[in-house]
Amino acid sequence: MTTAEEIEQLCRRAAAASHALAKVSSRRKNIILQAMADQLNLDRERIQTANQLDLKAGKEAGLSAAMLDRLELTDARIDGMMDGLVQLQSLRDPVGKEIKHWTRPNGLLIRKLRVPIGVVAIIYESRPNVTADAAGLCFKTSNAVILRGGKEAAHSNRAIAESLKTGGMKKNMPEYAVQLVQTLDRDGVRELVQQDEYVDLVIPRGGEGLIRAVVDLSHVPVIKHYKGVCHTYVDVSADLGMAVDISENAKCQRPGVCNAMETLLVHQDVAERFLPRVTERLLARGVELRGDDGARKLVPEMGKALEDDWHEEYLDLILAVRVVPDIDAAIAHINTYGSKHSDAIVATDPAALKKFSGEVDAATVYMNASTRFTDGGEFGMGAEIGVSTDKLHARGPMGLEELTTYKYVIAGDGQIR
Amino acid sequence: MTTAEEIEQLCRRAAAASHALAKVSSRRKNIILQAMADQLNLDRERIQTANQLDLKAGKEAGLSAAMLDRLELTDARIDGMMDGLVQLQSLRDPVGKEIKHWTRPNGLLIRKLRVPIGVVAIIYESRPNVTADAAGLCFKTSNAVILRGGKEAAHSNRAIAESLKTGGMKKNMPEYAVQLVQTLDRDGVRELVQQDEYVDLVIPRGGEGLIRAVVDLSHVPVIKHYKGVCHTYVDVSADLGMAVDISENAKCQRPGVCNAMETLLVHQDVAERFLPRVTERLLARGVELRGDDGARKLVPEMGKALEDDWHEEYLDLILAVRVVPDIDAAIAHINTYGSKHSDAIVATDPAALKKFSGEVDAATVYMNASTRFTDGGEFGMGAEIGVSTDKLHARGPMGLEELTTYKYVIAGDGQIR
Repeated sequence: MTTAEEIEQLCRRAAAASHALAKVSSRRKNIILQAMADQLNLDRERIQTANQLDLKAGKEAGLSAAMLDRLELTDARIDGMMDGLVQLQSLRDPVGKEIKHWTRPNGLLIRKLRVPIGVVAIIYESRPNVTADAAGLCFKTSNAVILRGGKEAAHSNRAIAESLKTGGMKKNMPEYAVQLVQTLDRDGVRELVQQDEYVDLVIPRGGEGLIRAVVDLSHVPVIKHYKGVCHTYVDVSADLGMAVDISENAKCQRPGVCNAMETLLVHQDVAERFLPRVTERLLARGVELRGDDGARKLVPEMGKALEDDWHEEYLDLILAVRVVPDIDAAIAHINTYGSKHSDAIVATDPAALKKFSGEVDAATVYMNASTRFTDGGEFGMGAEIGVSTDKLHARGPMGLEELTTYKYVIAGDGQIR
Repeated sequence: MTTAEEIEQLCRRAAAASHALAKVSSRRKNIILQAMADQLNLDRERIQTANQLDLKAGKEAGLSAAMLDRLELTDARIDGMMDGLVQLQSLRDPVGKEIKHWTRPNGLLIRKLRVPIGVVAIIYESRPNVTADAAGLCFKTSNAVILRGGKEAAHSNRAIAESLKTGGMKKNMPEYAVQLVQTLDRDGVRELVQQDEYVDLVIPRGGEGLIRAVVDLSHVPVIKHYKGVCHTYVDVSADLGMAVDISENAKCQRPGVCNAMETLLVHQDVAERFLPRVTERLLARGVELRGDDGARKLVPEMGKALEDDWHEEYLDLILAVRVVPDIDAAIAHINTYGSKHSDAIVATDPAALKKFSGEVDAATVYMNASTRFTDGGEFGMGAEIGVSTDKLHARGPMGLEELTTYKYVIAGDGQIR
């Protein structure tokens, strides 16, 4: 499965399946999702046997312990995939929902309705459970999905995809609704993401290198998650106890994720009171601190922050710290170095809150809360296909609605121009 | 202005201007729009002198009469640009509008608000009035705009852009809110559309060749308008008098535009009654007809339609005609050959209307009305930057709202995870 014609055929089949999917009722979709979950359970052993092959190859290839851990399909992880497919059933199907309607003076009734995007290609790395999660989300929204997983999880991905297809087909899922192409090399991926006649959206999930490569090659719109360089700004009007708690949480609760804080900005008029308090807490949690001159004067234990530090997504227990003269400087810093992901202000002054939330250019701006809440689950979306750092179509956590587009359905009684 | 550094500087300035624009009030924006309109009036002579240079060069280069006509800035066209800037003032500013809000069990209040996209690059051909129209729409929505017009209108575009800037600056428009780069060659355009750190959206306006070239080069999201291959399907349940009127209007009222009908599909059970009636009307309007065998049997004057005809955007008084066995065949034809722009059904049967509007994959689906209504003005948007044939972000006519994105502003009282 690597020739250009084979890839085109695959995409054409996905497009045909997407039209068939547009006709499947919400009730039927839920029955199929349940059948997928049941089949994963029936195929548990087969999936784990396949997974052993990947783990063995991974060990031989010298993958890190962390990578091997992400690759492993324990019973709990298979249960997790099943749970995901079950939970999707209770979420409201956005397809067909009316967004708005209005009537024109000539009598035309214009309705704007949610519809599936069509064909979604997902290009991902390492964790094989993405195969089931992404397939479920796309299926629930009546999108046909083409999955291209990482080489290191090839056997696992194939076993999961086969199981989903077997389960779905038992309940009459359109045959090419879920397709896995596991063997595409770089040329094959280029071919896939240039099929703009059939593929409507590409979502790459993985490191920045993978995402840049997909963007460079693609003729199809891409929704990207580059990185999260998240900031917390402590205003002169802040409740400093709250600021310490929020800073600790944003940095330490799970430092390896995209919504963790990477840079702390502190108003100069509270720096002397705030910085020793917060750094004591952070140092006790093992955080390495890198400050500008203003911060280092107050906290001598701090290393020196270089220009690169302001750009850095550490994903680790490291924090850059900067003392700023005022809120404008904090906003300018964030709009210069930030990744438009999640940024927070801690303040009590309503003018400061309004200014910061209005002027910071980010998908999510927090007032007196931790940046760690940028997440489909925490937003109450129930499930997410990822977090977008783009501005077009979808921004921030992407749930079911973000996997839809709209169309206008216009009713007349013979109107002409 | 063609080196890579100069283009990067230009884009960086646009990004800085976009942050300044986010702070400009709706009232101030309207004052600036009025100042732009006033300045166009003051500079009328200078603009027309510049326009003469383009017209002279165009004649020497052998441009067609139609091209020269599109290039010419008559007094009426300058008035038109001014009117556009005046009318924008009465349209509601979408920036800052709340889309929705909800509260989480932990007390976080999540508000989803409309915000500007940021920096929009518009790459267009021939008609110089696009310079003022696009600048006005982007400015009203607080987007910084980079305009790259066609070579053939270089002098006119420069004069208009200078006038807009002079007028705007009199009322404190951010300096780099509207920038024209008239001299970029193909390499320069590549450089521009790969500035994904600063440019948020590219909108190419022109022929399919221009659009494909931009899509191939761009690393920035592109909203495209490829073409309009629009269909009208006449169902067995149709009011045939209405069907004749709608067909004539969709084909003949303005055949050179994207929402004109290119293919007529007729249910076989009404073909014998309908086709002679409609073709009589169309032939009287000078339409050339190209039919499949079923249609030619009933209307011998018809030429033979080849496979290519089903794909064709004629933009002319030519119509492809096909007799289909049922509504499913009509829908399948549209989803195979259509451009997802605008398609219509004429029918009285509610089941047929529901099936067609549900299953046809197009930005706009009409029930008993002409496809000619797909237009920002006809939709009541007041102004449009174009019609999108994409599915992502914006579909169909793009007005002010479609030039915005959203952000989440979340208010808490110390929430941590």
